[in-house]
Amino acid sequence: MNAGPARILDSLRRATGRTCSGQTLSGDLGVSRAQIWKHVQTLRNRGYEIHAEAGDGYRLDSVPDRLYPEEIQEGLGTHWLARRIHYFDSIDSTNRVALELAREGAEHGIAVVAEAQTAGRGRLGRSFHSPAFQNLYTSLVLRPDLTIAEAPAWILAAAIAVANAIAATLEDDDAVEIKWPNDVLLSGLKTSGILMELGAEATRVDYLVLGIGVNLNVDRQTFPDEFRHLATSLASHSGRRIDRIEFTRRLYTELETILDACAKGGFDSVRGRFDERFKMRGRRVKVKQLDGRELSGTALGIDADGALRLELEAGGVCRVIAGDVTIVKDPIGHDGPSRRLKEA
Amino acid sequence: MNAGPARILDSLRRATGRTCSGQTLSGDLGVSRAQIWKHVQTLRNRGYEIHAEAGDGYRLDSVPDRLYPEEIQEGLGTHWLARRIHYFDSIDSTNRVALELAREGAEHGIAVVAEAQTAGRGRLGRSFHSPAFQNLYTSLVLRPDLTIAEAPAWILAAAIAVANAIAATLEDDDAVEIKWPNDVLLSGLKTSGILMELGAEATRVDYLVLGIGVNLNVDRQTFPDEFRHLATSLASHSGRRIDRIEFTRRLYTELETILDACAKGGFDSVRGRFDERFKMRGRRVKVKQLDGRELSGTALGIDADGALRLELEAGGVCRVIAGDVTIVKDPIGHDGPSRRLKEA
Repeated sequence: MNAGPARILDSLRRATGRTCSGQTLSGDLGVSRAQIWKHVQTLRNRGYEIHAEAGDGYRLDSVPDRLYPEEIQEGLGTHWLARRIHYFDSIDSTNRVALELAREGAEHGIAVVAEAQTAGRGRLGRSFHSPAFQNLYTSLVLRPDLTIAEAPAWILAAAIAVANAIAATLEDDDAVEIKWPNDVLLSGLKTSGILMELGAEATRVDYLVLGIGVNLNVDRQTFPDEFRHLATSLASHSGRRIDRIEFTRRLYTELETILDACAKGGFDSVRGRFDERFKMRGRRVKVKQLDGRELSGTALGIDADGALRLELEAGGVCRVIAGDVTIVKDPIGHDGPSRRLKEA
Repeated sequence: MNAGPARILDSLRRATGRTCSGQTLSGDLGVSRAQIWKHVQTLRNRGYEIHAEAGDGYRLDSVPDRLYPEEIQEGLGTHWLARRIHYFDSIDSTNRVALELAREGAEHGIAVVAEAQTAGRGRLGRSFHSPAFQNLYTSLVLRPDLTIAEAPAWILAAAIAVANAIAATLEDDDAVEIKWPNDVLLSGLKTSGILMELGAEATRVDYLVLGIGVNLNVDRQTFPDEFRHLATSLASHSGRRIDRIEFTRRLYTELETILDACAKGGFDSVRGRFDERFKMRGRRVKVKQLDGRELSGTALGIDADGALRLELEAGGVCRVIAGDVTIVKDPIGHDGPSRRLKEA
């Protein structure tokens, strides 16, 4: 948004629902009354409801349900994350844009946000269902001082941040869990996907792009058939509309805290937080590998490089690096904490 | 190239310098004499010298000094690498194209080759000097079954392949060495740069793009001032023109062999080959780190994640993950093998 409308918006916001006179606005901002009127029109076109008083003045009645940078950044408490945000009504893929920015030298912490993706990327090259104005699709350019080998911890850290933001928003810790490799589930249904792309020289990460999609207000009844029984949204789960701006701020704040910890102490420094959300431990799972073969066993935990450790039914422990996991339900119906094993 | 000209070229090549009659070509390929003539014109426009006999027939006199896919692939012995090549006279960056192909699902082994890059990427976000029709700029899309943590070994493997291809081309093993992190030097001067970009989910590499630039025929006197005392080309070093096609084939073949070994046994299975080329071991080096601070010490070796192990002058051993290395010359002038230490 241009500086003019942004400054008007700022003044109207500070008036917290009261009317600002055109004269005061004009004087404070040093622009003509006609300019003020023009900027107000710009804001209205962006969805801000601004009441023009009969006498002379403007009042901000409501802000639109849009992930505008100026809305997200209003009161955002981060130090370096999302201090600059590139916003798109619709884009092919936020990761594609962030990757381009990263390769052109964009600085640490720059965010890309879109209301809709026309070619959202998901795991294993799948597409990611990205309807407009309902959810959050964001990609972040990061330039950590990191070896490539340490990078996987940053995806695990992102999964923790997403899980924490969801739990805090719904005020429900129990329903949220991280499913290997990096899905965040609500009562067992997928609500979020995370992807990473990075550039590197021999050892060192040059840039790292984290792509995060979270189903917020989308109605799960509108999902494509093949997803409907597997996925949900925060709104479908809780029965109430989610404030997308507030969620986004919360996610960025969580993410900054966790990535800062990870940058200082590696994955070990956030492992405790990960384990709180990793409820697969001790449960019986089937993993369908990329070549179609299936492994069955008990999930033991996750290594710092993101691999899943599995105690095989056939005996022995193996590390799984890719595949689709199904949690096997206990025949008598409970498959929760009571059946969890201690980690080996 | 279209099928028509490619088939004519194939027939002319198989005649190994003898004349093919237009009638035979027309009959063999099932196209009219007029078509044959048109295809010959296409080939001539691409730089093939084709002599038209007074009677009736065509003879291939020379092939152009161009990295055309059909030239590279003629007799290329690889099984999966560069079986498909995307060729550009000039492109912003071969890595950018390969990255786009990878993200769109391009298969394992696809290569991008360009005669010139207008925005070649180098280490630490620097630009890479990429003059036209002199060198090799190639990027490869790889889809190894790999964790992110294992990916750095693939850059080290690429450096081995480049070093081997250079040594074989020049028939000179002694002049070639790998300088940390992934430069290949000829008598101490830089001749090659390697970059990696990758996409991943939690654990697993989805795609990996290796970008390789090698100075082949460029005259080092034409380098920008700031590179001239640091870099060379195979031609400037050896005083003879390099067959770029032959070099490219050799590089792809070396690369496939080494990556296959790496895919089976990890970096350990190619460490011996790396060590042969890593002549920094035991030498005194200064490393200028990204924050400007300098480390001095003796190079001990490289870890599988690409980090340089340094025995500090101040005492202790540290792992360096990024920076610029200068090899400190011995005051009495020899800084070669005689001064090498055993690895700790």
